[in-house]
Amino acid sequence: MMLNPADAAFRARLSADLPDDVLRDADARYLEEPRGVYVGQPALLALPRTTEEVSTLIRHANDARVGVVPYGGGTGLVGGQVAPDGPVPLILSLERMNKLRDVYPDENVLVVEAGVILADVQAAADAVDRLFPLSLAAEGSARIGGNLSTNAGGTGVLRYGNSRDLCLGLEAVLPDGQIWNGLTRLRKNNTGYDLRHLLIGAEGTLGVITAAALKLFPKPARTGTALLVVNSPRAALELLSLAKAQLGEMISAFELIHRQGMDFLSQTLPDVRQPFAEPPEWSVLIDVGLSGELDPSEALETLFAAAHEAGLVTDGLIAQNAAQATDFWNVREMIPEGNRQIGSISSHDISVPLSAIPDFIAKGGEILARIGEFRINCFGHVGDGNLHYNVFPLKGKNRADHDHQKAEIQAAVHDLVQEMGGSFSAEHGVGRMKRADLEHYGDPAKLSAMRAIKSALDPNGIMNPGAVVNV
Amino acid sequence: MMLNPADAAFRARLSADLPDDVLRDADARYLEEPRGVYVGQPALLALPRTTEEVSTLIRHANDARVGVVPYGGGTGLVGGQVAPDGPVPLILSLERMNKLRDVYPDENVLVVEAGVILADVQAAADAVDRLFPLSLAAEGSARIGGNLSTNAGGTGVLRYGNSRDLCLGLEAVLPDGQIWNGLTRLRKNNTGYDLRHLLIGAEGTLGVITAAALKLFPKPARTGTALLVVNSPRAALELLSLAKAQLGEMISAFELIHRQGMDFLSQTLPDVRQPFAEPPEWSVLIDVGLSGELDPSEALETLFAAAHEAGLVTDGLIAQNAAQATDFWNVREMIPEGNRQIGSISSHDISVPLSAIPDFIAKGGEILARIGEFRINCFGHVGDGNLHYNVFPLKGKNRADHDHQKAEIQAAVHDLVQEMGGSFSAEHGVGRMKRADLEHYGDPAKLSAMRAIKSALDPNGIMNPGAVVNV
Repeated sequence: MMLNPADAAFRARLSADLPDDVLRDADARYLEEPRGVYVGQPALLALPRTTEEVSTLIRHANDARVGVVPYGGGTGLVGGQVAPDGPVPLILSLERMNKLRDVYPDENVLVVEAGVILADVQAAADAVDRLFPLSLAAEGSARIGGNLSTNAGGTGVLRYGNSRDLCLGLEAVLPDGQIWNGLTRLRKNNTGYDLRHLLIGAEGTLGVITAAALKLFPKPARTGTALLVVNSPRAALELLSLAKAQLGEMISAFELIHRQGMDFLSQTLPDVRQPFAEPPEWSVLIDVGLSGELDPSEALETLFAAAHEAGLVTDGLIAQNAAQATDFWNVREMIPEGNRQIGSISSHDISVPLSAIPDFIAKGGEILARIGEFRINCFGHVGDGNLHYNVFPLKGKNRADHDHQKAEIQAAVHDLVQEMGGSFSAEHGVGRMKRADLEHYGDPAKLSAMRAIKSALDPNGIMNPGAVVNV
Repeated sequence: MMLNPADAAFRARLSADLPDDVLRDADARYLEEPRGVYVGQPALLALPRTTEEVSTLIRHANDARVGVVPYGGGTGLVGGQVAPDGPVPLILSLERMNKLRDVYPDENVLVVEAGVILADVQAAADAVDRLFPLSLAAEGSARIGGNLSTNAGGTGVLRYGNSRDLCLGLEAVLPDGQIWNGLTRLRKNNTGYDLRHLLIGAEGTLGVITAAALKLFPKPARTGTALLVVNSPRAALELLSLAKAQLGEMISAFELIHRQGMDFLSQTLPDVRQPFAEPPEWSVLIDVGLSGELDPSEALETLFAAAHEAGLVTDGLIAQNAAQATDFWNVREMIPEGNRQIGSISSHDISVPLSAIPDFIAKGGEILARIGEFRINCFGHVGDGNLHYNVFPLKGKNRADHDHQKAEIQAAVHDLVQEMGGSFSAEHGVGRMKRADLEHYGDPAKLSAMRAIKSALDPNGIMNPGAVVNV
């Protein structure tokens, strides 16, 4: 598909149909992304205030065959938000569309525009004594439209699902400029193909989300946190089953931690308070959120007793107050920073079927041992089957010593994931960074259907060109 | 799109590539549907045993431009399963693909073929001490592939979601005969467009589901049932909010019942035990399923006390044992049969936003009063915003007396639903019966996207021709 640049003539045509301050040259921050792998080329930036203005922009871009790069908070980790090559694109930032349109506490529904920052969505829910459970590291700058476009995961998935599970309806502008008003607040609506789920996770390649009706939840009345030492990843999974049997949907988080992460923390961030004098090889961080009259400490003690009886856990700490719970979570949340300071050779955001996790961890170690000597920090959302599997040099070496092995490591890990029925991108999406992985590992029938859908809805290929799918 | 009939030459080509007993003339039961609105024409019937055979059938049909009508349990209520006109089609029944492929209790996953009967899916979950929560009247004959294709609802939606929310992965044959292996058991997988959610709810117009990975749940340790008398539909909604605040996700059902339904029951089925001597105008049937150490009766008593204090409920019964709970549910479940015996003029499966329910009920009555004198039985899954809104003649008249008003009543109800942001088909789908409603009430951008997707994935229009969308 040949695209044209967003040149002066194009800009002039847009200007004629839009308020003066909607268009400008893109400043540097719109051309950067957190991993620094891609740098966007100079671009025209549009900052629309209304859905109608978004429609006008897209319609002109479609007429002129100009590429459009939708831009939320810019926090994506796979380069979906920057176009490093091709004709000069139009960057379409939703940041001015940041209104809370409506809140319906009795319905547990909040309707927001796409440019609202995730933390502000959470705060708006909190203001009516409700919970919006999507929570992730970038929540202070990520915008909800981007979260939905990438189907963001985060720490609440085990209990509340991914972003797509938190959305009842969407308003969006399709690649021909038509506005789709699908901003329903209905829990049941079987009237034709589900465009909502098609746009969610399409990373801006099939249209631009402009507003969403989001699901809210009652706040759990009381919460509790425990850090339990398990014998093995398999014991962690059995503990999860036990916890589900005892506590059902009340388990809010179930995170696996390996000694390597705690060791890196002691080394790089000695001020972080460590709960154990001697870091255990494997531990699990559990959060519960209870309704009604249940006591979280009692519930966790009951769980611990049964798990100890079953030989799954050998030791454990139940947070006695909020400060201690924060300390436990602080260890989990600082592990990525410890990793960063050590410097990984290769990092993987993978998922496998839950019961395959122990095998994946065992085989991963064997496969890497055939390539060389490494330290592995494997941790993450084990309750979702989502592991962060990061490979580090031995002490005394650094990542540059292993540059020549990086591609081999990545292929070995992704091949193993594929063999076990897993995913090479559990929560970050495809963007530009993992498009080759999708071509390599993706199901051929799915890829052909994706191309057909992309061509049908965006025949000129203007929406986020270069991301996700190549037509 | 011009289709060809499934004639002798076509049958001969299929026969050459398939086992002898896969093909036969369709017997009468494949040409009927429960409402009796459509009668299928004579057709060729295929009964494949494997996904590869389904692929062979679809590939030949696509090559020959022969229409394919996918057939599950035949229980759909909108004529999606029969083709009353057009060239003779191939009916593709999944009934022989009825294997439980795998069960993973620790993952809470069950992998089944599309032809497994819903009740057998529930039983397979039960056999490993898990719950598959999809539950509906036709569960003894409906097949899971059809449930997914139509995104079936039922009584468990409030707590567990619609069919689409219970599915982790699909295997399907696309309209060109390609097999898509998307039978993942992953909870997180962000690798391209979500074909799963596109096929779910497409009612067989974009391909044929051949297998699914389903979510299982821990069984609630203890359950409880209450029938509470509320002052009004608005009080019912406030009671729902209160119940959610107290019991969170533990509310399994929340059904509204109107006096009219109980009156019809007394009249037509006097043997059904009625819990109240004098039927209340509005009542709510609540089910809770609790984990851990909670006592369901205590939880319901606490709820009743708070609701009484708040002036929402005036009276109520908490089931003291399983037999009493069954009695309460029996009233709810027999209401449709009472309706059937009275004979409605017009029945509606509608949804509106939760908070619009009281207004909908009030305005519905006003609008119908302008058309004529009727009895209205409004009841159903109020926790989901899904009401069965059925219009009956006054005592002494019968439905034939109102035939001339039927179209006007339907349009008035659907117009009101549309005006309030609701849906003319909450859980039954579009099929052939509601295609005109979809054209009339559907969002134009959505309709154009639907047509583009249909043309892209099924350019010859062979899949369930005449259902859902007209290209």
